[in-house]
Amino acid sequence: MRTALCSLLDIEHPIVGFTPSEHVAAAISRAGGLGVLGCVRFNDPAELDEALTWLDGNTDGRPYGVDVVMPTRVPTEGTAADLDKLIPAGHRDFVESTLTKLGVPPLPDDDSPARDGVLGWLHSVARSHVEVALAHRPRLIANALGPPPPDVIEQAHAHGLVVAALAGRAAHARAQVASGVDLVVAQGYEAGGHTGEIASMVLVPEVVDEVGGSVPVLAAGGIGCGRQIAAALALGAAGVWMGSCWLTTEEYVIGTAMPALREALLAAGSSDTVRSRIYSGKPARLLRNRWTGAWEESGAPAPLPMPLQNLLVSEAHRRLMESGDPSVVPMPVGQIVGRMNDVRPVADVMATLVAEAGETLKRLGELHP
Amino acid sequence: MRTALCSLLDIEHPIVGFTPSEHVAAAISRAGGLGVLGCVRFNDPAELDEALTWLDGNTDGRPYGVDVVMPTRVPTEGTAADLDKLIPAGHRDFVESTLTKLGVPPLPDDDSPARDGVLGWLHSVARSHVEVALAHRPRLIANALGPPPPDVIEQAHAHGLVVAALAGRAAHARAQVASGVDLVVAQGYEAGGHTGEIASMVLVPEVVDEVGGSVPVLAAGGIGCGRQIAAALALGAAGVWMGSCWLTTEEYVIGTAMPALREALLAAGSSDTVRSRIYSGKPARLLRNRWTGAWEESGAPAPLPMPLQNLLVSEAHRRLMESGDPSVVPMPVGQIVGRMNDVRPVADVMATLVAEAGETLKRLGELHP
Repeated sequence: MRTALCSLLDIEHPIVGFTPSEHVAAAISRAGGLGVLGCVRFNDPAELDEALTWLDGNTDGRPYGVDVVMPTRVPTEGTAADLDKLIPAGHRDFVESTLTKLGVPPLPDDDSPARDGVLGWLHSVARSHVEVALAHRPRLIANALGPPPPDVIEQAHAHGLVVAALAGRAAHARAQVASGVDLVVAQGYEAGGHTGEIASMVLVPEVVDEVGGSVPVLAAGGIGCGRQIAAALALGAAGVWMGSCWLTTEEYVIGTAMPALREALLAAGSSDTVRSRIYSGKPARLLRNRWTGAWEESGAPAPLPMPLQNLLVSEAHRRLMESGDPSVVPMPVGQIVGRMNDVRPVADVMATLVAEAGETLKRLGELHP
Repeated sequence: MRTALCSLLDIEHPIVGFTPSEHVAAAISRAGGLGVLGCVRFNDPAELDEALTWLDGNTDGRPYGVDVVMPTRVPTEGTAADLDKLIPAGHRDFVESTLTKLGVPPLPDDDSPARDGVLGWLHSVARSHVEVALAHRPRLIANALGPPPPDVIEQAHAHGLVVAALAGRAAHARAQVASGVDLVVAQGYEAGGHTGEIASMVLVPEVVDEVGGSVPVLAAGGIGCGRQIAAALALGAAGVWMGSCWLTTEEYVIGTAMPALREALLAAGSSDTVRSRIYSGKPARLLRNRWTGAWEESGAPAPLPMPLQNLLVSEAHRRLMESGDPSVVPMPVGQIVGRMNDVRPVADVMATLVAEAGETLKRLGELHP
C-alpha cells in the first residue's frame, strides 16, 4: 500500500496519526506510520521541549511530526490574565451554575493555577512551539487552522521539514498550496475537534481535484478502519490523517482522569458527538454529553470567540475531567468514536488497519473486470 | 464492477438512481443502472399511473423501481383543507412577508389550486402509490423514511418485488431488516433531502457491519463520481444510491422553472447547502439561498412538524420556483451539488461514472502489494 506519501515522509504505511500524547506518537512512528504530536496543550515551551526530547529517543530513529495551531485570523493576543478581563460575568455565572447543576466538585485547594486554558491558540505561543520544534528532528510540521505564516513556512523549509495544513474547503487548500504548503489534509465534517461542514466523501475528491496535481492530499475525518483507508485512497487521497482513534489506545495516558474518559469513549456511538463552539470558540466536534447539552438549553449564552471561550471553560474542563464522571468529560472526538470499542496497543491498531486496508484493495482490484 | 446488487436487481452496473422524473428514471435503467421513480410528488394516483405506464414502455424492458415515503411515526392524517387549519397565522404571515421581501410575485389568478403541498408524506396517499405501483412492473419498492408497514412489505414480496429502505443509523437498518427489508440504503449526512447526522464515511461501514451479512447495503449521500462509487465499494457497500446528480441531466425537465433551477444548481458549490426543517418539517438538505436564509434570521418562526410545514410552504415553493429567480429556488440537493457543473444526457453521466469507477478499482488493485 505504498503511495506518494510514503516516499515524501519516508514511512512504510500511508497513515499519519495526530495525538496530544508523545507516547502514542512514538508508537505510531515505530509501527511504520507518522506520529504527529499536537503541541497546543503545552502552554510552557519547556514541557514541549521535554516531550520532543523523549520523542527523539523513542521512535527507533523513524520520522515523526508536530502540529501547531495558528488560526488564519489572529485572535486577540495577551496573557491569560489580560484576556480574562474580556470575559462577561454572565458567561462565568453560567459555567459555575452549570457545574453545580451537573454535580461537578471544585478542584482541590492546592491545585496549580487553573485559569490558563489553551494558550497554544495564540500566535505568540504557537511561534514558541515552532522554535522549540525546530531544535528537534521532526519530519513534518502541520498547522491545524489554515496555512502557517509565510516566515514559519520558510523557516520550516530551511530546516528540511514538510509543511502540512488542514483544509475544510477546496478554496482553502488552494490558498495553502499557493503559500507554500507541501501537503494538504482535507478534513471532513465527521472529524473530531475543529471541523468544517463538508463531509469527507465530498470534500476529499474536491480537494484532490483542486490541488492534487501539486501536492499529496490526506483524508481526515471518519477514518478508523482499513476499509475507510481504502475508501480514502479511492477518493484520490495519498493517505489518511487519523486523530480520534488513538484516544482509546493503551499508550494514551494524559492526566489522572483516564478511567472516566475511556469509559465515555468506549460507550459512545457514532451519533454521540456534537459540533459546537463551546470548546474553543470555533466549531469543533465533541463527545455529546450532559456538559454539551447544558449549552444547548434555552437560556445558555452564545459561546465567546477564540481564544476567550477556552479561557472561560478551561477551569471547568479540568473540573469536568477530574470529576471522574464519564457523563461530563469535555472531549473533542469524531463520529468514528462509534468504532472505538476496545483499548489496544497502538501497534495492534496499526497492524489491523494495514491488514484490512490491504484486503480491501485486493477485493476492489478483483471487482475490476 | 459486478456486485451482489447486480444479480439481485438484474442490472449491469451497481448504480441506483433516485429521481422524481420518469424520463430520467427510464434513461438510468436503459443505461444499465436502476432508475427509481420518486412518487411523493404525485398527489393524484392517476398521474402516477400515467407516469408508470410510460416507464413500463420506455426502459427497453429493463427493470426500474419506485420510491414512496411512509414516515415511521405516522404524521397527522387529513385532507389538505383539514390540515390547513392546524397552521398558526403567525407562520403564514412570516411566509407571506418573506416572499414580499424576496420580491417573489404571486401565482397567476387562473392557476390551479396551490395549497395542496406534498400529500405523499401521508400514509393514506403513500398507500395509494403502492397500489398503483403494484399494478405495473417495478423490480424494487423503496421507502425513504424507514421500513414500510408489514402488510406493504408482504404485498410487495407477494408481487416479487425487492423492498428497500433508507437508514441514517445502524440501529434503524437492523430494525428494517428485522421487518423484512431486502436492501438497505445507508444515507449519510451529506445527502440531499431528508438526511441524518452521520456522514457516509462513518455510516456506510457501520451499517454494513450491522446488516451486511443478511442484505446488500447501498451507499447514499455524497456520491457523484466514479471515485466515490469505488469508495462506497471499499466501505463494503454493494453499490450506490444517487439522487442529486440527475437534477442537472438533460432529461430532467419538471415544470416551467427549469432555467432558474439549473442555473442555481450549476452555480452552487459544496458549501452551498443547508440542513433544515423548513422544507417538510423533518431535517432535509436544501440548496442554501435567500429563501433558506430568511428562516435562519432572528425572529423567524420554528418550522412546523411534518406534514404541516410543507402545506405551509407549498404555495410559496411554487411561487419561488416560478419566479424564475435562481437565488430563491426551494430545492433539496446534497453536498455533491459542487460537482454538478454541466448539463449532460443521463447515458453520458452513467458512462463517465462507470469508466471512472473502473479505473479507480484498477488503480486500487495495483496498490495491493
